[in-house]
Amino acid sequence: MFYGGDYNPEQWPERVQDEDMALMRAAGITAVTVGVFSWSWLEPAPGRYEFDWLDRVLDRLAAHRIAAVLATPTASPPPWFSLAHPEALPVGADGVRLSHGSRDTYCASAPAYRAAARSIAAVLAHRYAEHPALALWHVHNEYGTTCHCDITAEAFRGWLRARHGDLDGLNEAWTTAFWSQRYTDWAQVRPPRVTQYLPNPAQVLDFRRFTSDELLDAYVEQRDVLRAATPGIPVTTNFVLGDWVPVDHARWSREVDLVAVDHYPNDAGPAAEEQAAFAADLARGWARSAGAADWLLMETAPNLIYTPDRMHTKEPGRMVRQSIAAVARESRGAMFFQWRAPCGGAELFHSALVPHAGPDNRVFREAVELGDRLPRLTEAAAGRVDARVAVLFDEPSAWALQAPGLPAQVNHRAEAERAHRALWRLGITADVLGGGDLSRYAMVVLPAHYLMSDERAGRLRAWVVAGGRLVVTYLSGVADEHARIRTGGYPGALRNLLGVRVEEFHPVPPGETVPLSGGGTGAHWTETVHPEGADVVTRYAAGVLDGRPAVTRHALGHGESWYVSTRVDAGGLATLLRTVAEAAGIGPVCADLPPGVDAVRRRDGERSWLFLLNHTPEAHAVRAAGVDLLTGDRADGIVELAAGGVAVIREDPASGRVVGASHAEKPGKPSGR
Amino acid sequence: MFYGGDYNPEQWPERVQDEDMALMRAAGITAVTVGVFSWSWLEPAPGRYEFDWLDRVLDRLAAHRIAAVLATPTASPPPWFSLAHPEALPVGADGVRLSHGSRDTYCASAPAYRAAARSIAAVLAHRYAEHPALALWHVHNEYGTTCHCDITAEAFRGWLRARHGDLDGLNEAWTTAFWSQRYTDWAQVRPPRVTQYLPNPAQVLDFRRFTSDELLDAYVEQRDVLRAATPGIPVTTNFVLGDWVPVDHARWSREVDLVAVDHYPNDAGPAAEEQAAFAADLARGWARSAGAADWLLMETAPNLIYTPDRMHTKEPGRMVRQSIAAVARESRGAMFFQWRAPCGGAELFHSALVPHAGPDNRVFREAVELGDRLPRLTEAAAGRVDARVAVLFDEPSAWALQAPGLPAQVNHRAEAERAHRALWRLGITADVLGGGDLSRYAMVVLPAHYLMSDERAGRLRAWVVAGGRLVVTYLSGVADEHARIRTGGYPGALRNLLGVRVEEFHPVPPGETVPLSGGGTGAHWTETVHPEGADVVTRYAAGVLDGRPAVTRHALGHGESWYVSTRVDAGGLATLLRTVAEAAGIGPVCADLPPGVDAVRRRDGERSWLFLLNHTPEAHAVRAAGVDLLTGDRADGIVELAAGGVAVIREDPASGRVVGASHAEKPGKPSGR
Amino acid sequence: MFYGGDYNPEQWPERVQDEDMALMRAAGITAVTVGVFSWSWLEPAPGRYEFDWLDRVLDRLAAHRIAAVLATPTASPPPWFSLAHPEALPVGADGVRLSHGSRDTYCASAPAYRAAARSIAAVLAHRYAEHPALALWHVHNEYGTTCHCDITAEAFRGWLRARHGDLDGLNEAWTTAFWSQRYTDWAQVRPPRVTQYLPNPAQVLDFRRFTSDELLDAYVEQRDVLRAATPGIPVTTNFVLGDWVPVDHARWSREVDLVAVDHYPNDAGPAAEEQAAFAADLARGWARSAGAADWLLMETAPNLIYTPDRMHTKEPGRMVRQSIAAVARESRGAMFFQWRAPCGGAELFHSALVPHAGPDNRVFREAVELGDRLPRLTEAAAGRVDARVAVLFDEPSAWALQAPGLPAQVNHRAEAERAHRALWRLGITADVLGGGDLSRYAMVVLPAHYLMSDERAGRLRAWVVAGGRLVVTYLSGVADEHARIRTGGYPGALRNLLGVRVEEFHPVPPGETVPLSGGGTGAHWTETVHPEGADVVTRYAAGVLDGRPAVTRHALGHGESWYVSTRVDAGGLATLLRTVAEAAGIGPVCADLPPGVDAVRRRDGERSWLFLLNHTPEAHAVRAAGVDLLTGDRADGIVELAAGGVAVIREDPASGRVVGASHAEKPGKPSGR
Repeated sequence: MFYGGDYNPEQWPERVQDEDMALMRAAGITAVTVGVFSWSWLEPAPGRYEFDWLDRVLDRLAAHRIAAVLATPTASPPPWFSLAHPEALPVGADGVRLSHGSRDTYCASAPAYRAAARSIAAVLAHRYAEHPALALWHVHNEYGTTCHCDITAEAFRGWLRARHGDLDGLNEAWTTAFWSQRYTDWAQVRPPRVTQYLPNPAQVLDFRRFTSDELLDAYVEQRDVLRAATPGIPVTTNFVLGDWVPVDHARWSREVDLVAVDHYPNDAGPAAEEQAAFAADLARGWARSAGAADWLLMETAPNLIYTPDRMHTKEPGRMVRQSIAAVARESRGAMFFQWRAPCGGAELFHSALVPHAGPDNRVFREAVELGDRLPRLTEAAAGRVDARVAVLFDEPSAWALQAPGLPAQVNHRAEAERAHRALWRLGITADVLGGGDLSRYAMVVLPAHYLMSDERAGRLRAWVVAGGRLVVTYLSGVADEHARIRTGGYPGALRNLLGVRVEEFHPVPPGETVPLSGGGTGAHWTETVHPEGADVVTRYAAGVLDGRPAVTRHALGHGESWYVSTRVDAGGLATLLRTVAEAAGIGPVCADLPPGVDAVRRRDGERSWLFLLNHTPEAHAVRAAGVDLLTGDRADGIVELAAGGVAVIREDPASGRVVGASHAEKPGKPSGR
Repeated sequence: MFYGGDYNPEQWPERVQDEDMALMRAAGITAVTVGVFSWSWLEPAPGRYEFDWLDRVLDRLAAHRIAAVLATPTASPPPWFSLAHPEALPVGADGVRLSHGSRDTYCASAPAYRAAARSIAAVLAHRYAEHPALALWHVHNEYGTTCHCDITAEAFRGWLRARHGDLDGLNEAWTTAFWSQRYTDWAQVRPPRVTQYLPNPAQVLDFRRFTSDELLDAYVEQRDVLRAATPGIPVTTNFVLGDWVPVDHARWSREVDLVAVDHYPNDAGPAAEEQAAFAADLARGWARSAGAADWLLMETAPNLIYTPDRMHTKEPGRMVRQSIAAVARESRGAMFFQWRAPCGGAELFHSALVPHAGPDNRVFREAVELGDRLPRLTEAAAGRVDARVAVLFDEPSAWALQAPGLPAQVNHRAEAERAHRALWRLGITADVLGGGDLSRYAMVVLPAHYLMSDERAGRLRAWVVAGGRLVVTYLSGVADEHARIRTGGYPGALRNLLGVRVEEFHPVPPGETVPLSGGGTGAHWTETVHPEGADVVTRYAAGVLDGRPAVTRHALGHGESWYVSTRVDAGGLATLLRTVAEAAGIGPVCADLPPGVDAVRRRDGERSWLFLLNHTPEAHAVRAAGVDLLTGDRADGIVELAAGGVAVIREDPASGRVVGASHAEKPGKPSGR
Repeated sequence: MFYGGDYNPEQWPERVQDEDMALMRAAGITAVTVGVFSWSWLEPAPGRYEFDWLDRVLDRLAAHRIAAVLATPTASPPPWFSLAHPEALPVGADGVRLSHGSRDTYCASAPAYRAAARSIAAVLAHRYAEHPALALWHVHNEYGTTCHCDITAEAFRGWLRARHGDLDGLNEAWTTAFWSQRYTDWAQVRPPRVTQYLPNPAQVLDFRRFTSDELLDAYVEQRDVLRAATPGIPVTTNFVLGDWVPVDHARWSREVDLVAVDHYPNDAGPAAEEQAAFAADLARGWARSAGAADWLLMETAPNLIYTPDRMHTKEPGRMVRQSIAAVARESRGAMFFQWRAPCGGAELFHSALVPHAGPDNRVFREAVELGDRLPRLTEAAAGRVDARVAVLFDEPSAWALQAPGLPAQVNHRAEAERAHRALWRLGITADVLGGGDLSRYAMVVLPAHYLMSDERAGRLRAWVVAGGRLVVTYLSGVADEHARIRTGGYPGALRNLLGVRVEEFHPVPPGETVPLSGGGTGAHWTETVHPEGADVVTRYAAGVLDGRPAVTRHALGHGESWYVSTRVDAGGLATLLRTVAEAAGIGPVCADLPPGVDAVRRRDGERSWLFLLNHTPEAHAVRAAGVDLLTGDRADGIVELAAGGVAVIREDPASGRVVGASHAEKPGKPSGR
């Protein structure tokens, strides 16, 4: 079980390390991440290395049996590098070359940067290959830097050649017939620099894909250097989530030995737990699709939640509970940013296990408590979360929907979170996937999955025919993989599967709703839906669409597909998803789960562990039977959760199957795959 | 009657053109605009032309008796052009040179661009001069691009020399004594690039005027090339409205053979119809002032209204009604952007007559309906709208009022729209003019006409003396044509004409109002007004101006001038304008017109056609007698309009004069001109 | 007594000067500021001077016995200078070099600019050294321009060398161990240009300090040139306040012969008077700390208050009252921007004593009234405001708190104004200081004094030990002078002095409050406070801090220190400050002062003058006895103030000591210094 955080002893006099070691021992820390931003300390001048300090840090860690997650420091090249290689500083869309003085000041396409990054990685690997503290390589930090320079432009052209073959292919994929953008020589093709008016959305989308692949190349180069030197040490990099991040993590997940994510919720209320659950189920989904077992929460803030205008302190107990919630969802532990709060730099008020005020502090005391709790969960690590519902989250679709000129703004990630939240509140555990094999799932939700290739549409169809239950919401399937609208009627690639043809979109003004025949409302978006094989489940009950279909269901083979043409209110969405889930033989993890209480089951063959997390300020009782790993107490049918309390129940053998009916083989389950 | 839209067959496989022709015939399309953004398809490399595809398009059109509005493609130079002539890419105020990859990526002052534009225009003209489909030349698209490069700077200096003579003239006109900006060498004079603090407003204003003239030169060059090749074919360019557009359309109107405007309302509610009426009355006003007969609505969205955050679909029937409303105001037809919805590019969700979903669609069905209705109106095309009220809309005043540092923000166009709306709601048809001869009008409204030359002030005075009735609102006449304040008391150039002297402006905070003696309120702006010959009509009734004049009237010669020193509430403004109109012998087009029903009369000698447009969701009756061109039904005194309905009544000979008293010769009418 | 304003005759035909002189005489003008932006008029080409016009202006002034505040014109170099020295144009953080065409288009580090500035100053000084009108040198205008160019970078490095010694010192002060920013060569060190993500806050802070010092150098160079030529003429420059201004005015105050400030409130309501009182008390504080007697309000708007969206006219009488309020606070007069409203330029609607409408105007009539009143106050100029409370306002703290990444946004100036306002409403006069000797004060308030050196903390401690009463609010003392957090517990450098240790910050969401045991509320910010010697005065009464200390008091030596860990509501803050003031023997200037009536006493030995300013629209009575200098009327115990009225009472000898008990020697006063 990983428990620790980013550790930057280079920010402090060396004597502080002794206190660090003592405090880490007191808190039960098992692993720390070192070296993330240490390049200028490791290599203060080109080819001149200062490793003594890091040697001593790793030696101390080893002496205290604390594992080192050793980072390559390539996310922040030193000032000397920028001066020696100004062409390796990133350039904005406006052509302004950025300066050093922050972090991430590099162009991933610049040969000098690539060479320097490989070199420092190789030197590190060579030096510490045999060090007993070394447990995991942490390449770089939060890949996500975009550059628009001329070197990048050349790399982009190479990538486009590989993707589109020739200029005819490019012109067709990008619809350059629009606004006279036809390219007749590769030299004319550029990154989307500032231009007079709206850019070409296909160009923007491809540039984002290219950036993802270019960064992935940079990662893979380092990974391969590290693997060559230390074949036995796993290699990863920490993913960061965010609308601005030009990284297709589903694709990247196949290249890491352990999916590691950083997660910082941006809402201090109960939504933080929902966001964290989404992120965890997404990380697990990425791991699942890549064939991996578990994942790791590599960074989160111990005690703060950052909203745009301020930092909020977590209530007592919340850090421990959130950490166990991550473990419930298969995180291999709980790693934090950061161990000790810095006294300077750009993030000097970021949260830390050892705050500015020192260890005589609520936060550190909770860290000690967490260090006491986590080891008790070790046996549950063998268990797998066995979700039978998947929510598809497609980062290229999210990017494409950020283009200007959509009928109304739709955020793919927000739509995915909305669907996930509805399931979470129903007590139904879902994997959030970037794609891949769906055969393990009985139900799949496609929220505003804007881009849809023929190949993906075909796989979805086959999965439904085999018995899958699919729920598709508006703006899915509308465009092909080049963000070109599929003509003939929305939702394009999914029309036949859904048995509908949509004639027209009707965005709804903010604050307005449209009543639905079922009693709820739609908002934000409505559509003129013509059933072409589908049954009408719910109709619009006013306005220009009065009486027309809002929600439809289409039986196909052994499965069925639902289409939801509007943003159904939360209650309505829950009802719809529960209906589909029940038909698919999927129930909640626990019956009668109180609102705000999170339940996740990890299962290993006959054994199962039920994680119960009471995110509310009231006490609650939950039906379960077994032994609480945290307290050793037995529960014979009812677990009493204190306000904010947590229980991890090693369930009595029969218990899991009785209370949660989720694994019964029902007719609706896709078979044979 | 033009009926059609922008047609871009180059975006589709050629086979789609056959469907296009069939659908155009089905919809009764009479004209399409081709080639607007086709440069890179027509000239894929410098001097290498590919016209075959366009030949076939035009041949098909001719075969189907559809007229071609043939565009020069110069609004979007191809990527090869930008690479060959990087100096012809536009530069922002911050000095950043923009990239291709959108549209309008050109500098109108760059010789290479000018030469390339003339050349492609000449080649097109030569090739299609005799083509039977060719009906109208459409130069460029929505001129409006501003550039701040060094080539532009040199052109700006040339323009300034012509305008101001020498540097002394420039220094005086720009008040360079303020902040030490005195120019002592022409080389020092630049476009308003980014600077440390507030720019010189006279420099900014002149740069906008220069840009208008420079773009006009570019237009005229192409026009003359086309005229030389095809003397019989009229030439135009489509105007676009917007606060950002650096084009003085009143001036441009004299250089086009047909005033053509693009109009996209930005409010989905009933205000869209008011905005469209303003735009139409403005286009007609520009045409009138240029001595032309009618104008053409060259672009509008068939089925969508774009607001800043989303697209709204028009209710069924609204497209047809809005189109007939444009014809009512003398549009020579109804052209749309666009024929077929593109599947890619930056505007892929823009509205089209053939939507993504294809012709089996409400929008296309309405297009067919419109194509059925429009020909029925042909006889009315002979009629002229004979407005006797003019609202002056002065684009340079609008630009000058965009400068920072005004006492409060006043948008000239919004003020003009406000006055126009009040008249529209009274059923009084107005021309919106950029200036020119006023002798045909009995009443003129000057809304926040900030800039006022002595010459224009003199013409206004002469018009009033001859019997005109003038209504002037605050911030008019305050500055001269160089945006220099006229000292001695506001409203400067209009003081004597209005018989008032304003001592001080008192902007009113947002949300606050000042009661007026008449019962209504003023808002946004108030003034300390001293009558100097004028009578006080309304007084402020509270605050620091309590008891002082708010609205005055000044008799002069055979006419009179009103001054409105505050933003009177809508009801008060309507009362005021009706009072003045009645005194001028002007009444509504129809008596007892229900709110939301629009009435416009076109008259040709003894014949007249009354257009009645019910923009409300309720049925209404209007007094009229004659035959409805749309249905052939007679109305003997009462026309019944369905909710959203339209009637175009060929009025019985006596009818027009009886119901609308607007053309009786009353004492108030200016005579002798 | 200075009474006048900025005078720009170069903006007008010379004949206007005759009217100017007549009007100035009519208004009793005593001084005008000339030449502020006249460079291009004085030196139209390099080395070619045109002084005739200015000769005649100064001669006219002398003839009319009006003093000249003669400015060096260096705030706005002429266009010819920018063309000759493009490297002297300022560069933004994005690397964009700005253009001329506004004002302040210079780089203060550029040798060419410095030389040109010294040169024009020397030429001016030489020409007018003996001119009888010359009374005061006004160097430049509102220093505050930041540049990021390479010349500046070199100067910045020099400044950093002087401040930090070597790169080790710099690396430590800037915490470059964070994000790998370690500098290993001075050439790597740059101004904070645009970078990829958050900048280094210590770098940003030092760059702002450097800019202050660099501008100060530029000022001192000119001052020394002027002093050498005219030893008897005082030299100043006008300070401008604003969050963006990179000038440490407390430091600058030591280099001017007269502290001169420009003040423009940004709220049109009663807050304008509070802002003006703060600015005046701050100017006086700066003067005090520099050992000077009084100061001068060099610019304010006669009749307008500028808020972000509009200009508000002052109510009748407000200009006169505000001017006397400045004199009450020791301004050596009332100078305005500006004499005559310009008819062009970027500020063409700025307020003026002679408005656009000319002298037949309420504003000019009030100027005449003010000219009549001010001389009556001459005798009071001998009096000093003897504040015994100081509010510390530390501009570097304000800058440091503008960094991103604070737990919540706290504006140091707003916090200082908040404390000052509470005292103002209590009728307690305070000096606002940038630091310096505190021995004259019995009470000091430190509002959010984020940066705190050991040296300043030590001086505060000594002052408290000697009997001072200190009130410290949250976020004080937290960081050292390099903006590095002091670890071990907040408020860092002040922990021992305050007898508390703060474990954790808890920002409060906007709109929320936390109840306090005293009955009021806290907002925005709360803290976990542990008393370590201090007594708890008030506790939090709900939430996670329920029952914990909110306000504490710590006795130390002869004095005591209060700590306020939250933003106490206005009433609670007033109560707290009154309690502390009473313990320090400080009472209001007048007993029973009605809300909104401002009272300030100037004292000269036994003589005293009580300024009473009724900022409310109601009449009020105030207890005072003596003769009103404005009217000559006696008051025998009660002064009746009309709505908006003013009285300046030459107090009967006993009166000042009886009514205002503020100068009695109470035990609380620090002694011996």
